Amino acid sequence: MNYPNNLKRDYKKNISHRNRGMDLECSINKSNEYYLSINRAVIYKKPTPIGLVDVKYCDNKKQINKAYFKCPSTLDYNGIYKGKYIEFEAKETISKTSFPLSNIHPHQLKHLKLIIEHGGIGFLILKMNNIIYLIKGEDLINFIDNNKRKSLPLKLLEEKAYVIKERINPSLDYLSIVDKIYFKE
Amino acid sequence: MNYPNNLKRDYKKNISHRNRGMDLECSINKSNEYYLSINRAVIYKKPTPIGLVDVKYCDNKKQINKAYFKCPSTLDYNGIYKGKYIEFEAKETISKTSFPLSNIHPHQLKHLKLIIEHGGIGFLILKMNNIIYLIKGEDLINFIDNNKRKSLPLKLLEEKAYVIKERINPSLDYLSIVDKIYFKE
Repeated sequence: MNYPNNLKRDYKKNISHRNRGMDLECSINKSNEYYLSINRAVIYKKPTPIGLVDVKYCDNKKQINKAYFKCPSTLDYNGIYKGKYIEFEAKETISKTSFPLSNIHPHQLKHLKLIIEHGGIGFLILKMNNIIYLIKGEDLINFIDNNKRKSLPLKLLEEKAYVIKERINPSLDYLSIVDKIYFKE
Repeated sequence: MNYPNNLKRDYKKNISHRNRGMDLECSINKSNEYYLSINRAVIYKKPTPIGLVDVKYCDNKKQINKAYFKCPSTLDYNGIYKGKYIEFEAKETISKTSFPLSNIHPHQLKHLKLIIEHGGIGFLILKMNNIIYLIKGEDLINFIDNNKRKSLPLKLLEEKAYVIKERINPSLDYLSIVDKIYFKE
């Protein structure tokens, strides 16, 4: 059946994209809860920064009546693992061939560079084609600094990134990849 | 002049309390900006966690029409300094003799314990009587675990805490105290 302006198709696409977004974030949050429960790491998602416009008192509690989302200058998740500072961003894309770099703000890239420079662990978790990759901050920055491309090609992920396996608990065992990369001895 | 229900007095007290709160937070934020500018540390205030109730699109941008403040389960500030994970809370009190411990949520205390256990640096910056103290997380937890008092007495601060000097740049040089406590050699 044909809808005017392909409404049906767009609607479906939006839903699917949004769900996938929630899936990855939800998976990481649950994994962090699991890691915390077994005392392996203390990692939290940072709250989204907002700008307050109108706050009122309602039943003795502050209620926000108007606010907007601010552009984040740091990454989504941070915490401590094996005594080291850890910070990362999680993204997914519906593209099957590349990840548009416009999804990472320049402030965030600058921040990632600083984290690495100061001795922390920084990386990107990226979901593409239903596969979840972990790409080291160093490799991401190296690609961006030495390429004019505005997207991360699948080929680079296949060459440089590590695949994170999905399990039951934790649902996304990204710390086993962190062990492999940053704590190998 | 007497106002009904001491309205004037209450009003004055609120203003004064609020300004003092902004002063300390503002001072720490500015100091963190300074530390970042000289590449000494990467420390940010975490956004306040909020619960969204109503979000709408307005001019193609998401606008929050109703939300509320959530109880934080971690501390105000975190980041990386000399390769170490650092996290702290900043509080001030108008009391001249003690700091009410009800100002720190049980979740936050549990989190502070975990940070220390995992090898991070955790502390409280406290402003009382116009003096700014830094008290080690270990000393704070030790006091709470071994006392039935519901407030931190000034005497404990004078014995255990370190006074942070106010300067021009950074306005609050708390990292020099961190150096003294955690990086002495």
